[in-house]
Amino acid sequence: MSADAPVVAVLTAGGDCPGLNAVIRAVVRRCIDVHDAEVVGVENGWNGLMENEVRSLRRDDVRGILQQGGTILGTSRRDPYEQGDGYASVQRTVERNGIDTVIVIGGDGTLRTALRLADEGLQVVAVPKTIDNDIAGTDMTFGFDTAVEIATQAIDRITTTAEAHERLMVVEVMGRTRGWIATWAGIAAGADAILIPEFPYDLDEIAEVVRTRVRRGRTFSIVVVAEGVDPPPGHDRERRLDALGFERVGGVAYQIAPELEERTGVETRVTVLGYVQRGGVPTAFDRVLATRLGVKAADLAIEGTSGVMTALRGPEIVAVPLEEACSEIKKVPPRLYEVAKTFFG
Amino acid sequence: MSADAPVVAVLTAGGDCPGLNAVIRAVVRRCIDVHDAEVVGVENGWNGLMENEVRSLRRDDVRGILQQGGTILGTSRRDPYEQGDGYASVQRTVERNGIDTVIVIGGDGTLRTALRLADEGLQVVAVPKTIDNDIAGTDMTFGFDTAVEIATQAIDRITTTAEAHERLMVVEVMGRTRGWIATWAGIAAGADAILIPEFPYDLDEIAEVVRTRVRRGRTFSIVVVAEGVDPPPGHDRERRLDALGFERVGGVAYQIAPELEERTGVETRVTVLGYVQRGGVPTAFDRVLATRLGVKAADLAIEGTSGVMTALRGPEIVAVPLEEACSEIKKVPPRLYEVAKTFFG
Amino acid sequence: MSADAPVVAVLTAGGDCPGLNAVIRAVVRRCIDVHDAEVVGVENGWNGLMENEVRSLRRDDVRGILQQGGTILGTSRRDPYEQGDGYASVQRTVERNGIDTVIVIGGDGTLRTALRLADEGLQVVAVPKTIDNDIAGTDMTFGFDTAVEIATQAIDRITTTAEAHERLMVVEVMGRTRGWIATWAGIAAGADAILIPEFPYDLDEIAEVVRTRVRRGRTFSIVVVAEGVDPPPGHDRERRLDALGFERVGGVAYQIAPELEERTGVETRVTVLGYVQRGGVPTAFDRVLATRLGVKAADLAIEGTSGVMTALRGPEIVAVPLEEACSEIKKVPPRLYEVAKTFFG
Amino acid sequence: MSADAPVVAVLTAGGDCPGLNAVIRAVVRRCIDVHDAEVVGVENGWNGLMENEVRSLRRDDVRGILQQGGTILGTSRRDPYEQGDGYASVQRTVERNGIDTVIVIGGDGTLRTALRLADEGLQVVAVPKTIDNDIAGTDMTFGFDTAVEIATQAIDRITTTAEAHERLMVVEVMGRTRGWIATWAGIAAGADAILIPEFPYDLDEIAEVVRTRVRRGRTFSIVVVAEGVDPPPGHDRERRLDALGFERVGGVAYQIAPELEERTGVETRVTVLGYVQRGGVPTAFDRVLATRLGVKAADLAIEGTSGVMTALRGPEIVAVPLEEACSEIKKVPPRLYEVAKTFFG
Repeated sequence: MSADAPVVAVLTAGGDCPGLNAVIRAVVRRCIDVHDAEVVGVENGWNGLMENEVRSLRRDDVRGILQQGGTILGTSRRDPYEQGDGYASVQRTVERNGIDTVIVIGGDGTLRTALRLADEGLQVVAVPKTIDNDIAGTDMTFGFDTAVEIATQAIDRITTTAEAHERLMVVEVMGRTRGWIATWAGIAAGADAILIPEFPYDLDEIAEVVRTRVRRGRTFSIVVVAEGVDPPPGHDRERRLDALGFERVGGVAYQIAPELEERTGVETRVTVLGYVQRGGVPTAFDRVLATRLGVKAADLAIEGTSGVMTALRGPEIVAVPLEEACSEIKKVPPRLYEVAKTFFG
Repeated sequence: MSADAPVVAVLTAGGDCPGLNAVIRAVVRRCIDVHDAEVVGVENGWNGLMENEVRSLRRDDVRGILQQGGTILGTSRRDPYEQGDGYASVQRTVERNGIDTVIVIGGDGTLRTALRLADEGLQVVAVPKTIDNDIAGTDMTFGFDTAVEIATQAIDRITTTAEAHERLMVVEVMGRTRGWIATWAGIAAGADAILIPEFPYDLDEIAEVVRTRVRRGRTFSIVVVAEGVDPPPGHDRERRLDALGFERVGGVAYQIAPELEERTGVETRVTVLGYVQRGGVPTAFDRVLATRLGVKAADLAIEGTSGVMTALRGPEIVAVPLEEACSEIKKVPPRLYEVAKTFFG
Repeated sequence: MSADAPVVAVLTAGGDCPGLNAVIRAVVRRCIDVHDAEVVGVENGWNGLMENEVRSLRRDDVRGILQQGGTILGTSRRDPYEQGDGYASVQRTVERNGIDTVIVIGGDGTLRTALRLADEGLQVVAVPKTIDNDIAGTDMTFGFDTAVEIATQAIDRITTTAEAHERLMVVEVMGRTRGWIATWAGIAAGADAILIPEFPYDLDEIAEVVRTRVRRGRTFSIVVVAEGVDPPPGHDRERRLDALGFERVGGVAYQIAPELEERTGVETRVTVLGYVQRGGVPTAFDRVLATRLGVKAADLAIEGTSGVMTALRGPEIVAVPLEEACSEIKKVPPRLYEVAKTFFG
Repeated sequence: MSADAPVVAVLTAGGDCPGLNAVIRAVVRRCIDVHDAEVVGVENGWNGLMENEVRSLRRDDVRGILQQGGTILGTSRRDPYEQGDGYASVQRTVERNGIDTVIVIGGDGTLRTALRLADEGLQVVAVPKTIDNDIAGTDMTFGFDTAVEIATQAIDRITTTAEAHERLMVVEVMGRTRGWIATWAGIAAGADAILIPEFPYDLDEIAEVVRTRVRRGRTFSIVVVAEGVDPPPGHDRERRLDALGFERVGGVAYQIAPELEERTGVETRVTVLGYVQRGGVPTAFDRVLATRLGVKAADLAIEGTSGVMTALRGPEIVAVPLEEACSEIKKVPPRLYEVAKTFFG
């Protein structure tokens, strides 16, 4: 590597997501093997960029991580605007390490931060990351396919128990503001109803679906619920902190289930899938997507593009302005939800 | 089939368990193809035997069910002693259908009922069934391997998230009175602590394990908890019925987690695996075990043995008196738990 | 259903592909539940349309098939142009059953037949099907994701053995004329070289990649080969028919492997994945894609569109003229292959 | 660790097998954490013991390897009796490193070598390892469950294709001298015939099974073949070395398939599963078994026992004299094979 080789930094911010390591590996291999550049790994997300927690990343450092969940760089929820004063908070690390471009792998909050830093003058390329698939400007995000596959396999299993016991099973999947996982996993597992934040729901209608099934001899039903749907009328959004300040994940299914049980007379049970959806070995699809996004980010970094995010558009990986990605939290479109509704009941 | 062919009835009682259909198929195929006998399927567990809900089972009825979760016969929790007057409640169905022997597939409650019916004169052969592996007299029960595999894969996934976020993850698995699933899945997934009902636990000790890990740079930990462990001091056994009488599954992890978070200072999260552990496609191991148990049950039924359960003993399938199976709820032995403890921390 | 309800026929032609049943189910549910139409299932592909092998498909007929591999309608390789005289061969079945539109699910050969029939006046809508992903006009075909996932998991497993034994493993995957599965699975599993029909290969170059790895202490390598690549110089395209006229699948890996072993001195082994890639339970991705394509096909059939294929374009399902789909066998583009090459060695 | 802490060496010999790393980890953790002993890792099997290729193994060296296929120590097929002069070849390494006991993880050849070394005076404890499950003295070997699970899932997939195309599928699984994998996977996947080396087979009988199925409307069949069965009459044991001396794995299925096709008239295809069966992530069952065997081996080493193998007997792990393990290659017993035959056809 020549003394004036370009220096690319890479960091992962926000929650765990299958494919993070695949992106890191792709950035490192592309920069080193194709562009003869140097890669600096920033630890613990933005925090490392604020605190100069960095280390050189070589080929051997990313060996064998393609299939691994988690991130070898660690992550944090610290942010240079919330816990610092923006560009100034990270400038010293950037300069001290001669970093030409920072590749940030993160969700919508991270992308907004990246956009602000780009506006302040940091050379930055983003790779969108969320199991929730709700980032605008890209057809899909990596991690989503894995989350859907896990949720689908879980619902497949729960379905046989529902049938054996003639029960209504309410399965809560991740999705605080959007219902992508619920919609896809619900379609894939043949759910009898899918409740997502994008569309209001009516418990009486769902109960009628369940009762119609019973009349047809289908004495069990599966209802998939995104964690972010509104609680039923008369229920508060569940307080999830207990006396010790401990946070529960999910819970709206526990509010919906008894309402459905009362309306249908069908014995009802709840499963909250929780953290199994966001970790572990990525599917092949997510490994390929993460790898392609990482390669593109490296190429953009080397050519000096800034303020963009890599994105999947049809069969291509393209660069999309961060403004576009930050313009909205991508909703499940009515067309897709209407496809899912075909199979309700 | 000759007019005086022996008639074997088969029923499934209690909760769903991967491999139920594999047993049913094995009974049917063995009776018909090898013993030239007739098989009657009893629907909805003991209920069908009390209410004469029966149908003939032929080869074609069990086609393609080997891999399927659930039970084609349905199940129920109704019992001829609790909701009826024992043998008298089922005698009419037995006589009306010319049933020579009833093969019952069920858990410990079912086995006790089978024993009482056998004592009253019913010809009965049992096949032990529980994902909890806590039936005495057999090395393993079918369904357990599948439950352990599912739980292990889930913990594998959760571990990467724990590591990425430097968290303590408390994972609650099934096991109301025994900790077999917790112990096996905990060993298989490399848990840092495993809490089971057979042995008391000390939160301070567990917290110390977690803190020691942190000192060694292992800033995350996995604690596996069987649902049936006692709540921590100062906590009641959680009331799991809400205002509408709705029952929650599990929950002790939500009592243990904040206590550990407080003692360790490590951010803590809970996952309750719930119903995914007890349904769906059985592992190959469970398919083989269920098939062998079903074949043996058919052989015993045809030869006129009664009051026994089929069991795995080393590499063999044998008949065990139901008394032995009903003598205790099999505990995780100290030897095995001590093996697991080797890897705590 | 009214007497003059539209009648939609559906058939599956060509090889098995995970998701076929999901498409059939989607067509049936969409036609019946949304469009109040009638569905006729045609058995054994075009053969059934030529021989009037049809049966009514109702809701109950497609119950539980979403997850199943194979096709409940059967398939065949018979073709109305090769074994019949085109439209005339199928017209009687169409008229006798009052079929308004035929939905054909099939690969490129089937699409070409559908196009010719459409030109002769048959109302036809196609759903593209191939694990090979080589149909033009759509971003992806259903079945491909499952094939890639299976191949990737297999290569993951083979890699640990390669490493333990310091071996070169040549893994042959499906793809007679195109290298989509090889490219995706190779990227996903971190292959050291990927050989596909779209690009020539040089055994000396690949051997040099392997030797460079050995020099770096990586004493094992994985080479993924699409079955359709040319054999090495000096080898004939292997005669795959034996004395009894029996056809072997694959085999070029057995010609490449000894050449690489000789050039590298690294012990080399071959695995031909074969039929495991094209059957069984579809991934969640393929279930969703197949369902969406089937819903769209039903909608197009009902609205009277003909001569089109349903296709994935970015996040949308659209109708594409069959001419476009039949214009070429879609190649792996240089851009994607160049991404894969980043990780060679 | 005190200066006079006991020193335990560990090595892995022979082929890859899921669970090797789990045993190594268990030995290291048990020795260090429970027995305050030191562990020396020997590289590349017996070779490392002959050539003094050793390194200290600490807690951190075995971190995260429980789930990994392969062996961190490498392996080889070199043997101190075949390539050396027995005990004398390894004595220098043993003495130079102050090794008190050597734990060897290997198959039947390795066990025989271990027995001879023990007879010459080496302190040795063995852990039996083979995916083939054919080691006497233990109910099961680790790696077998994983191999059976992989083979079963593969046959599940192949079955849907067989059914869709009305084909006979011949699936060849590993097992050079014994048919354990074939028998278990065949039972688990519902095979219509299973051919293993322990029992002669008659192609006419198998063909009759297939034809009977066709008459019953089951126009497809699955035949599972262990690689080690004799070729059909008139076929030589296939020459598996080609012009360059390259060895093929398996192949007898290619000799059996055309014979069955000719006798049945059913289109027949072959899949040779090959190396996917012996690598990769172990099942939970194998992780638990491997861990328990490793813990027991460490305990035996520390207490000074020699010339034994750890073994599964019913629910217990016990020590078994190496003589017993080496007395025979364990056959599939007639009882088990007869269970499998219940489901033929």
